[in-house]
Amino acid sequence: MDDDVVDLAGLAGRITRPDPGTAAAARERQRRLTKPAGALGRLEDLSVWVAAAQGRCPPRDFARARVVVFAGDHGVAEAGVSAYPQEVTGQMVANFLAGGAAVNVLARLAGATVRVVDMAVDADTPADVAAHKVRRSSGRIDREDALSRGEAARALAAGARIADEEVDAGADLLVPGDMGIGNTAPSSVLVAALAEQEPARVTGRGTGVDDAGWMRKVAVVRDALRRARPHLAGTATGAGPDVVGLLAAVGGADLAAMTGFVLQAAVRRTPVLLDGVVSGAAALVAHSVAPDAAAWWLASHRSTEPAHGVALDRMGLTPVLDLGLRLGEGSGALVALPVLRAAVATLAEMATFEEAAVSDRGAGR
Amino acid sequence: MDDDVVDLAGLAGRITRPDPGTAAAARERQRRLTKPAGALGRLEDLSVWVAAAQGRCPPRDFARARVVVFAGDHGVAEAGVSAYPQEVTGQMVANFLAGGAAVNVLARLAGATVRVVDMAVDADTPADVAAHKVRRSSGRIDREDALSRGEAARALAAGARIADEEVDAGADLLVPGDMGIGNTAPSSVLVAALAEQEPARVTGRGTGVDDAGWMRKVAVVRDALRRARPHLAGTATGAGPDVVGLLAAVGGADLAAMTGFVLQAAVRRTPVLLDGVVSGAAALVAHSVAPDAAAWWLASHRSTEPAHGVALDRMGLTPVLDLGLRLGEGSGALVALPVLRAAVATLAEMATFEEAAVSDRGAGR
Repeated sequence: MDDDVVDLAGLAGRITRPDPGTAAAARERQRRLTKPAGALGRLEDLSVWVAAAQGRCPPRDFARARVVVFAGDHGVAEAGVSAYPQEVTGQMVANFLAGGAAVNVLARLAGATVRVVDMAVDADTPADVAAHKVRRSSGRIDREDALSRGEAARALAAGARIADEEVDAGADLLVPGDMGIGNTAPSSVLVAALAEQEPARVTGRGTGVDDAGWMRKVAVVRDALRRARPHLAGTATGAGPDVVGLLAAVGGADLAAMTGFVLQAAVRRTPVLLDGVVSGAAALVAHSVAPDAAAWWLASHRSTEPAHGVALDRMGLTPVLDLGLRLGEGSGALVALPVLRAAVATLAEMATFEEAAVSDRGAGR
Repeated sequence: MDDDVVDLAGLAGRITRPDPGTAAAARERQRRLTKPAGALGRLEDLSVWVAAAQGRCPPRDFARARVVVFAGDHGVAEAGVSAYPQEVTGQMVANFLAGGAAVNVLARLAGATVRVVDMAVDADTPADVAAHKVRRSSGRIDREDALSRGEAARALAAGARIADEEVDAGADLLVPGDMGIGNTAPSSVLVAALAEQEPARVTGRGTGVDDAGWMRKVAVVRDALRRARPHLAGTATGAGPDVVGLLAAVGGADLAAMTGFVLQAAVRRTPVLLDGVVSGAAALVAHSVAPDAAAWWLASHRSTEPAHGVALDRMGLTPVLDLGLRLGEGSGALVALPVLRAAVATLAEMATFEEAAVSDRGAGR
């Protein structure tokens, strides 16, 4: 794939759904396990989803779950929409690399590894982390475009390339993480634009702004939303939104890269465990051009950011957890990963009625 | 403790609450970690709870999480309240011992171990499993007492003794599991009695009975509830219910043992991860004589059994997961255990703002 161009229609056309035959086999195996039918609730559905995604029944445990944290700064932070100063983005990237952040701790515990990608941090980062960097920070989206179209296209392509790199290296579960002071503002704008919601409906407190900060943020979302609308014109005609234009106008390089990442994961038939509102917004952008891609994504949790629930509802995704999380980084996905592993293990390892000589009278109900 | 007598008032009087000083230290440490205050939502509360229970900040990961599955048959199964025949209880005990059941698979995955205790299975089980066995099956609670008072007292004492054995052997987290065809019927009766609810409000489909079975079950719960009421007379006078009489009339040896188990865990200052409606009902019985004991219990999930939600609400416990589980065995608790470990790990292992040189401007909000 060329680094500067991403053929979204081509990508979308290459996405197929998880294997229905394997899903049927997994449902049948669930019925034979030594438990009442349906007694493991959502775990049963999750096990079927993993089996279908892997094309293998019983499914196998994830051997290489991989978090990619897309870091970027946002010019909109100048508008006073975050409780934290912008330099925290770069400081947190250093914290990720030192292994001290929540995503590191949770990844170790859940048996996943973490890669950090600097897409637009307003600070210098190590060369390998900055290999796909598009620019430093972004334009204030309430007044100007976040990126040029070229930058947005490059970021999209970089995200897709990173997904390819990870799948080629053996990743069998991908988690898009995020880091960037101010990144819930563009996420809220993207969700409001694509789900046709009012600014106040999608604007949350991010890292924890006070009431005055929240009101400033609503105004920013409102102004940016006005700037987003021209890129949605194709939606009415069925052509779909101008995704590159939308991400350039009100997104950012991190959001564009995450969009390419979750799209390409679907092309590569690799399941994705979404995190919070930022990965949810990127997924919604991807969904607007490739609805079938959502069949490869699982919503790990519902965050307290209101735009997150809106995005998940729009994509028809039901979150696994609801624990009041709002950290990002991929942290919520990593809290849910053991639940997904539990789903896989029960389908793969439990004895059947026949194997255990347990009466299955009643199991057919 | 004498095997035949359990001094409930004495037990209740020996229960103290988790350490408030350690809880305060844990809350303060949470504020210094490299994340916005509150961003890990429920995980932060869970980490504080574990720290207070352990009297140690930062808390440490559970070294010996232990599931004890209390198995017993119930005469009420004759009334056609289950989708499965009664012999499944003994068959499932064999399945547990062979390692093929959901509880075994989930325990391996979550780093816990499983002990099976036969309190009243209507089949022969190995000598070590049957060491605390009180009788085979129980009376049909819609028509007669489940147990004699002596049997109920012995089962209560056995449960407390098992908790002592496990804590003495190093268990630092206890999970009460259940196995017994028909066991959701007495559980529903106990919850209806103590939470003053109508039969239809607390009666679920257990392993999956059809509509006719559900209506039979409601009638059984109604009749048993009438038999339960005399044992609640003390509630009005403040003396509390006659717990031994209540468990003898409408409980069972498994439920009585679980009641003693969760009470003694609180006496021993050992956190308990409750499972579904059966352990929830036993906990509610224990709570009726020792409300402070609930400070040592965490609700792992909300099952689809309606009595479960009623019991948790009554005890003021908020479930961690809501995944439509209804298997029992301790399975739901084991799905939640990794979430609890995640809470502990983030508090114990994340870098502080100072350690990571990250700006905490805004963290105080």
